[in-house]
Amino acid sequence: MRSRDPKTLAEAAIEGDRASLARLLSIVERGGEPARVVGRLVHPHTGTAHTVGLTGAPGAGKSTLTNRLIEAVRGTGSEVAVLAVDPSSPFTGGAILGDRVRMQDHALDAGVFIRSMATRGHLGGLSLATPEALRVLDAAGFPTILVETVGVGQVEVDIAGAADTTVVVVNPGWGDSVQANKAGLLEIADIFVINKADRDGAAQTQRDLEDALGLATRERRQPAIVRTIAATGEGVGDLWAAVEEHREWLRTSGELERRRERRVDDELREIVVQRLLHRVRELRHGKTWDSARASVVARDVDPWTASDELLEEAVQDV
Amino acid sequence: MRSRDPKTLAEAAIEGDRASLARLLSIVERGGEPARVVGRLVHPHTGTAHTVGLTGAPGAGKSTLTNRLIEAVRGTGSEVAVLAVDPSSPFTGGAILGDRVRMQDHALDAGVFIRSMATRGHLGGLSLATPEALRVLDAAGFPTILVETVGVGQVEVDIAGAADTTVVVVNPGWGDSVQANKAGLLEIADIFVINKADRDGAAQTQRDLEDALGLATRERRQPAIVRTIAATGEGVGDLWAAVEEHREWLRTSGELERRRERRVDDELREIVVQRLLHRVRELRHGKTWDSARASVVARDVDPWTASDELLEEAVQDV
Repeated sequence: MRSRDPKTLAEAAIEGDRASLARLLSIVERGGEPARVVGRLVHPHTGTAHTVGLTGAPGAGKSTLTNRLIEAVRGTGSEVAVLAVDPSSPFTGGAILGDRVRMQDHALDAGVFIRSMATRGHLGGLSLATPEALRVLDAAGFPTILVETVGVGQVEVDIAGAADTTVVVVNPGWGDSVQANKAGLLEIADIFVINKADRDGAAQTQRDLEDALGLATRERRQPAIVRTIAATGEGVGDLWAAVEEHREWLRTSGELERRRERRVDDELREIVVQRLLHRVRELRHGKTWDSARASVVARDVDPWTASDELLEEAVQDV
Repeated sequence: MRSRDPKTLAEAAIEGDRASLARLLSIVERGGEPARVVGRLVHPHTGTAHTVGLTGAPGAGKSTLTNRLIEAVRGTGSEVAVLAVDPSSPFTGGAILGDRVRMQDHALDAGVFIRSMATRGHLGGLSLATPEALRVLDAAGFPTILVETVGVGQVEVDIAGAADTTVVVVNPGWGDSVQANKAGLLEIADIFVINKADRDGAAQTQRDLEDALGLATRERRQPAIVRTIAATGEGVGDLWAAVEEHREWLRTSGELERRRERRVDDELREIVVQRLLHRVRELRHGKTWDSARASVVARDVDPWTASDELLEEAVQDV
């Protein structure tokens, strides 16, 4: 029987054992103290992977494109990991359709590791579990990690946008660039992909995007726009070249360090806030809370004064 | 020159001085320690006012209806206060159109007090400033307080729904009851008003509402549905009768105490959370934060371990 001890698993995963890696990721999904142990163990081994986030509306072709990118990376001889994140579905782990398709395509290729991500109780949800999972994959030695977000909410945008290189996938057609603007995608995109570029309106969508980006990105690097047909693989080479080019720019411009620092900042804030909110939730089940409420209802104290005592208790054992 | 000391103002407001009352509300809007002093002073004098929340889509006729309700209450000889809350506009204080119209209508009537509410920096925004303002008006002796929310987001629904009696205003027309359902209005409504009931479709809207409510309110009191034409005043007497009936039911059923206890619970939670979040924001500007981030970036510690120290500092002087 294999060990479930995080330390043994982490050591084996760092040495390249994929079964141990899968178990580590399950521990991260579940959160709690074991996940923290994993985090402490892998963190010193991180920092070499380049993460590429893919986001966009459902049906835009993200899964097919991710599959093509796997091929492109493998064509360079490099290993690749894929993390598919679906915040709208808490129990997708390893079971979403796109995953199974890709699993079949790459089942015999030991250089490809594919994993769906669910929260399963992690404090702070996927926005905290995802960076932890990425560090595990980083420590396991994958030079490239693709992060595909499956839903379309703010969480998905945040997760994809927290990658080193963010790819936003749209399709030809009026309004897609407008929607991208509304969803905040213009701000996070390092590369725009117009997928299904054989459809009507690809050129117009590119012009719309260029116009919108001209306004939105005055103070930062202008995102590349690449046209692809993921179904046939057309343009995927150009997309990968754009990713590589962006990676090189990040490294030479110093932007990579700035981004990673900002990301640590955001993650620290989120951890602190989530731990405090968790403490408040626990507190509400306690006696101090009941008596504070009763005192306010009886008008013995006002809510702010009552909150003083609650805060004092809230901050114990955080 | 008048005193701006909260204690003197509170005593004068409780004695019926309206200028002092207006100043107290400005203090509450600004938040901070002076607002807490006001809260402590007025809280023992609260508990007698009946609060009636009005919410609904823009253009539904809430302002006109509020104006008519003022007349209805004044017709009974009772004094009335109106708090108009517009979360979408942080600086509306005393200046929104509906307000000025009503001000003119009731300018010579000392039994009517109308006030627009903005946050102006209150920690926790309008969802915390509103209950505080309501307690000030309660302590000032108004037996009835109308709370009109001007926007259409979750905050507005929360604010109106936190009243003793919640009135949801819709208009005749297909889909309005569906939208009410989507916005969570079916759950919070104690009374539905179909305003502009002289328009086509009023009967159909009533049937739609009854169907939707039949499903949504199995486990609670069935909301009354009242048709009004606020522009002419038709049906406003029925609406006021429905409010009075609901008030009586709240009192005799014990539901009033349960609701107020729940509201205190929600408010306490919000205060505790906002105070902790405020502390986290302050913390981010400090040296401990900078050094924690630097340690994580340098991979000396992982983010969770770094957060331990930050939490320890976060919980000091909350």
